[in-house]
Amino acid sequence: MNSIEKFKHVRLKSIEICRPLEIEDYLPQPSIFVSPPKWHLGHTTWFFETFIAKNFSDYKEFNPSFAFSFNSYYESIGDRVARDQRGNQSRPTVNEVLKYRMHLDHFISSLSGSELLPFEELLELGLNHEEQHQELLLYDIQFILWNQAIQPTYSTEFKKATQLLAKPKWLKIEEGLYDIGDEGLTAFVFDNEKGKHKVYLNAFEIRSELISNGEYLDFMEDGGYENARLWTAEGWDWIRSNKITAPLYWLKNSEDRWKEFGLNGFQSLDLNSAVQNISWYEAAAFCEWAGYRLPTEFEWESSSSQFNWGKLWEYTISAYLPYPRFKTDEGAVGEYNGKFMINQMVSRGSSYATPIGHSRKTYRNFFDPSMRWQFSGIRPCKR
Amino acid sequence: MNSIEKFKHVRLKSIEICRPLEIEDYLPQPSIFVSPPKWHLGHTTWFFETFIAKNFSDYKEFNPSFAFSFNSYYESIGDRVARDQRGNQSRPTVNEVLKYRMHLDHFISSLSGSELLPFEELLELGLNHEEQHQELLLYDIQFILWNQAIQPTYSTEFKKATQLLAKPKWLKIEEGLYDIGDEGLTAFVFDNEKGKHKVYLNAFEIRSELISNGEYLDFMEDGGYENARLWTAEGWDWIRSNKITAPLYWLKNSEDRWKEFGLNGFQSLDLNSAVQNISWYEAAAFCEWAGYRLPTEFEWESSSSQFNWGKLWEYTISAYLPYPRFKTDEGAVGEYNGKFMINQMVSRGSSYATPIGHSRKTYRNFFDPSMRWQFSGIRPCKR
Amino acid sequence: MNSIEKFKHVRLKSIEICRPLEIEDYLPQPSIFVSPPKWHLGHTTWFFETFIAKNFSDYKEFNPSFAFSFNSYYESIGDRVARDQRGNQSRPTVNEVLKYRMHLDHFISSLSGSELLPFEELLELGLNHEEQHQELLLYDIQFILWNQAIQPTYSTEFKKATQLLAKPKWLKIEEGLYDIGDEGLTAFVFDNEKGKHKVYLNAFEIRSELISNGEYLDFMEDGGYENARLWTAEGWDWIRSNKITAPLYWLKNSEDRWKEFGLNGFQSLDLNSAVQNISWYEAAAFCEWAGYRLPTEFEWESSSSQFNWGKLWEYTISAYLPYPRFKTDEGAVGEYNGKFMINQMVSRGSSYATPIGHSRKTYRNFFDPSMRWQFSGIRPCKR
Amino acid sequence: MNSIEKFKHVRLKSIEICRPLEIEDYLPQPSIFVSPPKWHLGHTTWFFETFIAKNFSDYKEFNPSFAFSFNSYYESIGDRVARDQRGNQSRPTVNEVLKYRMHLDHFISSLSGSELLPFEELLELGLNHEEQHQELLLYDIQFILWNQAIQPTYSTEFKKATQLLAKPKWLKIEEGLYDIGDEGLTAFVFDNEKGKHKVYLNAFEIRSELISNGEYLDFMEDGGYENARLWTAEGWDWIRSNKITAPLYWLKNSEDRWKEFGLNGFQSLDLNSAVQNISWYEAAAFCEWAGYRLPTEFEWESSSSQFNWGKLWEYTISAYLPYPRFKTDEGAVGEYNGKFMINQMVSRGSSYATPIGHSRKTYRNFFDPSMRWQFSGIRPCKR
Repeated sequence: MNSIEKFKHVRLKSIEICRPLEIEDYLPQPSIFVSPPKWHLGHTTWFFETFIAKNFSDYKEFNPSFAFSFNSYYESIGDRVARDQRGNQSRPTVNEVLKYRMHLDHFISSLSGSELLPFEELLELGLNHEEQHQELLLYDIQFILWNQAIQPTYSTEFKKATQLLAKPKWLKIEEGLYDIGDEGLTAFVFDNEKGKHKVYLNAFEIRSELISNGEYLDFMEDGGYENARLWTAEGWDWIRSNKITAPLYWLKNSEDRWKEFGLNGFQSLDLNSAVQNISWYEAAAFCEWAGYRLPTEFEWESSSSQFNWGKLWEYTISAYLPYPRFKTDEGAVGEYNGKFMINQMVSRGSSYATPIGHSRKTYRNFFDPSMRWQFSGIRPCKR
Repeated sequence: MNSIEKFKHVRLKSIEICRPLEIEDYLPQPSIFVSPPKWHLGHTTWFFETFIAKNFSDYKEFNPSFAFSFNSYYESIGDRVARDQRGNQSRPTVNEVLKYRMHLDHFISSLSGSELLPFEELLELGLNHEEQHQELLLYDIQFILWNQAIQPTYSTEFKKATQLLAKPKWLKIEEGLYDIGDEGLTAFVFDNEKGKHKVYLNAFEIRSELISNGEYLDFMEDGGYENARLWTAEGWDWIRSNKITAPLYWLKNSEDRWKEFGLNGFQSLDLNSAVQNISWYEAAAFCEWAGYRLPTEFEWESSSSQFNWGKLWEYTISAYLPYPRFKTDEGAVGEYNGKFMINQMVSRGSSYATPIGHSRKTYRNFFDPSMRWQFSGIRPCKR
Repeated sequence: MNSIEKFKHVRLKSIEICRPLEIEDYLPQPSIFVSPPKWHLGHTTWFFETFIAKNFSDYKEFNPSFAFSFNSYYESIGDRVARDQRGNQSRPTVNEVLKYRMHLDHFISSLSGSELLPFEELLELGLNHEEQHQELLLYDIQFILWNQAIQPTYSTEFKKATQLLAKPKWLKIEEGLYDIGDEGLTAFVFDNEKGKHKVYLNAFEIRSELISNGEYLDFMEDGGYENARLWTAEGWDWIRSNKITAPLYWLKNSEDRWKEFGLNGFQSLDLNSAVQNISWYEAAAFCEWAGYRLPTEFEWESSSSQFNWGKLWEYTISAYLPYPRFKTDEGAVGEYNGKFMINQMVSRGSSYATPIGHSRKTYRNFFDPSMRWQFSGIRPCKR
Repeated sequence: MNSIEKFKHVRLKSIEICRPLEIEDYLPQPSIFVSPPKWHLGHTTWFFETFIAKNFSDYKEFNPSFAFSFNSYYESIGDRVARDQRGNQSRPTVNEVLKYRMHLDHFISSLSGSELLPFEELLELGLNHEEQHQELLLYDIQFILWNQAIQPTYSTEFKKATQLLAKPKWLKIEEGLYDIGDEGLTAFVFDNEKGKHKVYLNAFEIRSELISNGEYLDFMEDGGYENARLWTAEGWDWIRSNKITAPLYWLKNSEDRWKEFGLNGFQSLDLNSAVQNISWYEAAAFCEWAGYRLPTEFEWESSSSQFNWGKLWEYTISAYLPYPRFKTDEGAVGEYNGKFMINQMVSRGSSYATPIGHSRKTYRNFFDPSMRWQFSGIRPCKR
């Protein structure tokens, strides 16, 4: 696929993700960490418009006020709708946003190879950016539907997405120097993966399979959420003030049996699927209870070729910090990654919601330790 | 008009009010005091369904989950969507709510006179309730449109709605005993207007015309918002913490001239229209500055026949408290008025957004002193 | 007693109130509505210094920084320690504040009759102001001691202060015109009591005795705190968010019997004493449950000669609003009362903590409806 | 010094630190991160009582209620005064706390060598714990005095504590494997320093001297606090919401010159002293502006022998996370360190407020990135 074909393909995928939605579902923002689907569709378009299209004198901006509506956090670009106000924006309408997408897509698709050449890198960044939002779209859609009085089903495509098929084994990794990171010479990587460098690892053992719902239920039934000793101080405060007693989407049915809400609606809890929609705090407390620990992101990357990954993002005990020689880019795209390098924990791998082709072993995702609407799970190490 | 004709007429009016909206505009809740238009349409229907239709064994409930979605504050009726979550409910969709309305309207319209007879009072209450929501709909629509990045115009119907045509005069009212309230023997009144009783009033002087934008601008230009002496302690805290320096919908244009946003979009400020969309705190501070005072609700009612009212709700210095012999009704409708009788100030009259026929001199409206999205103005008394 | 003798007497009384305290007890501010005893001692001194002593050219200010420390809310006088920071002020020390008091007292006491003459009114205001703070001191001391891990006893002087000695009777008051307020021609009154005027009252019945702890316990045991129907909407929110289920100072002992904390420490609950330390919300809910109502402040004043009052402040259904012809004074003392006339409910009478001589039937005290650290009770009317 | 002598020495030091205080200064808690000096004195005593004295059957607890007053965060030990309520505890009085200290000190000092033997480790932990609180005491005292209307001087002992004497040089450190951590075989270390392990470091350059006030002022005058590009997203939010525009204790005098508040009161800003009382966010933004970066904690430890440290704690870019093989201890002391290992950044070294003998190159201190009342500074690396 050449770049324009890839562009069309990725752009279309975002629309397809939204297809099962009612117009009304494009709007809600039930929590500050959620963005309305309409906003995702506008914001990804704005990214291409701002960093590529506007460099062409013959590009006619679709609507200058959209820059205010669809900038996410780029301080260098200008003012924007406050993050917690995204759900209050009924305008532009869904239909206008779709027209905005077509307008931009038409312009980009009509560029010649030589016109595109200086923007190849930004185009690739834009497509990877849109793929990230495609995954966020699924997280946000699930959370929005969950917040309805009647909790509707999004799709049946995601059934058994996290089913665990093999018996867990412990994989022994040897002590030594390992290479970490990727300079992106052969394929796209984000700036936070660059700065390839060596790390020295002690020998460790990592599990071939993720933690299952069944194992997590044992933790719960053993009083895991009531035992302060298992939690970091911050995690304990968090479960207390938010009255957290189970993973985000678990509910008990009228017969006191657990069921789990997902993109495929409510299902009775499958004990043999990987536990998901837990926070880093919960992952860490589970490990403390089980006598395990989370891997570092370096342990994960160094051993990832020895297990199957890709069902869920996998928590690590590594804070999201710059690699050696990390430097923010000049210009607004420099705000892409670096400015979030504080108080976030690295997740590695990818999930069943990650677009195909958008995953690699050096990928560094990151979340606030209290977040749990994303599709994350636990792969333990021996202590 | 008989009751069923009136019923059809009032029910249709709510739909007409929403006609200029896009589907997306039915959803936002940009502040906790706003309800989404979709919610108003559902809630008014739920009121008739709950208090009338459900008493008939042959009524088939449209959707049992709607009771959870559209109960406002009736504790006796059961659980409901939390007030601050109304804007997050994309479901039921607008279309489903319209079907819900048709379902209920069809049922009520098909009732015979004798079937309706025991519910005549509740029917009238329901219609007055819906008329109240029609006015709230206009407040909420204006606030929602104001919160869009592009602030659209709702209608041109409301131009010059508050224009002041005559020169203000002071009307002298004599000391003496006056009758207050209405037992509702000849026409509908709310429970809070009953308990007809005498009050003794000192002589007073009340103005024939409301305070104009021009007079309010004088107050602003004289430093009214910076002079703590003019404000109640609570009002001063409120303008400081909310950085209030002008009426809600006033903005300065690029040439530093005031313009005002309304249902008819932005207009340059008409100095000769009545000031509106100010809080009670601001009304009281203005009066303090001008050497005036607000009337009591009893002064207002006793003198209302001597001036023209109906452009804007008119603030009074009276707290919203029960009249003699006030008693909450048995059953859930008893929650209609009485439970709000604390920390609210009475407004009297009606506004250009009040449905025709839904106003009378004994009407007691009430607002928290910090509210200003409603269409309220100032009619001063001499001190 | 001439003015200077009265001055010395009142000033000494404040010191006597604090005598049982440890130095450390002068400092805490466990809630924003509490002021540290040290602050009361400084603030009452500052009042005399600011409004009287500073008018004399030979007065030497004790310490100019104290104006910042001890101004309460007088915007016209200048900046001050933020209200919620009073408890963080270890300096000036208690000892320095006592010296400040002596310095000011010495100066005022040394003024000749003719020098004092122009300040007689302000002196009287200052003494009444200090008497108000003496009562607040007792409320605050009780609240501070209650907040200690070991809850100490302040004094044994207040035992049985609210004991009810007679059987309650209903007193019938006739319909008619009554005089309200007092112009203060023969004795001191606050500005909010002036504006003597007539009110017309319907016939009503008021009880000779306050509501007892026993009656209030019946309300609690009948599920009063769980029944939304009894509460104003605001009151219901308040008990829910603050998890209120009993009067402020009630606790159950290890044998599940109620005890009550007071200035005299913990005592087992006396069913035959008047219930106190409840909020207006609770008083109103109790009345709703019992089929009673609170009196208006006008009903209270008009009938007060027919019952014994003075044990506890008595809640009314009247909002704190200006009497006819009320006008704030010129100068900073104009901030004394008027600026609080919004969202407060009037209490009438006085309590066992009110200084002798500091009570009269026209006195208008006022509290936010959620406050309950003050010594307030319930005298019901028949509905 | 044997253990008992060391015990007496350390215990006395805490009292000496408080000697310049007025009784009142022992109480305030002007921010949740501050503990009242009285609390520090009680809490350190409680630590010895709980973990050592109570194991002896002949120890008579001084006052059982003190456990509630002086437990800090040990969930396993039981309930305690809520952290934000420490400043409201006037009781026990300072005098009672001093008696409590004497009671415990007397008991411990009277133990024989063989009785002490099983508790040697806990005794050493308790002494190191108390030394940590001695440093916190100085932070808290400075913050309390700063919050007084008159900001008093604590001592003149700390003048020029951070003066920079040498010209900064860049020290080149070679690439390679380095040993990190200390098993504590020869001297006391905290559990978080154990797990000695190898790390592989790239070559780097670290500066011989800390960043000076002069350099930091350049950053400020170049608009450092207004340039979003220099800040992490979280840091930018933090300076915006808290209106941060300078280090914590900097103020401009009446001639617009900077002065700095410290334990030695206000001094005009010494451009040649190390900048301190900045947050991690500010340290990181400064480095971004200057083209530097913070070291990792491993870089710091590996190079620390080549520069002078000990003036200020030194920020690193390392999150506070467990070393290999870290495991929380059994029993309540296991809550000492591990439960804070999330969302904190490591500081290394020690400060002029660190007790003599209480510093070593493996010491891992940690702070939330927004904290700045502690004595921390910046030692940059080349990028």
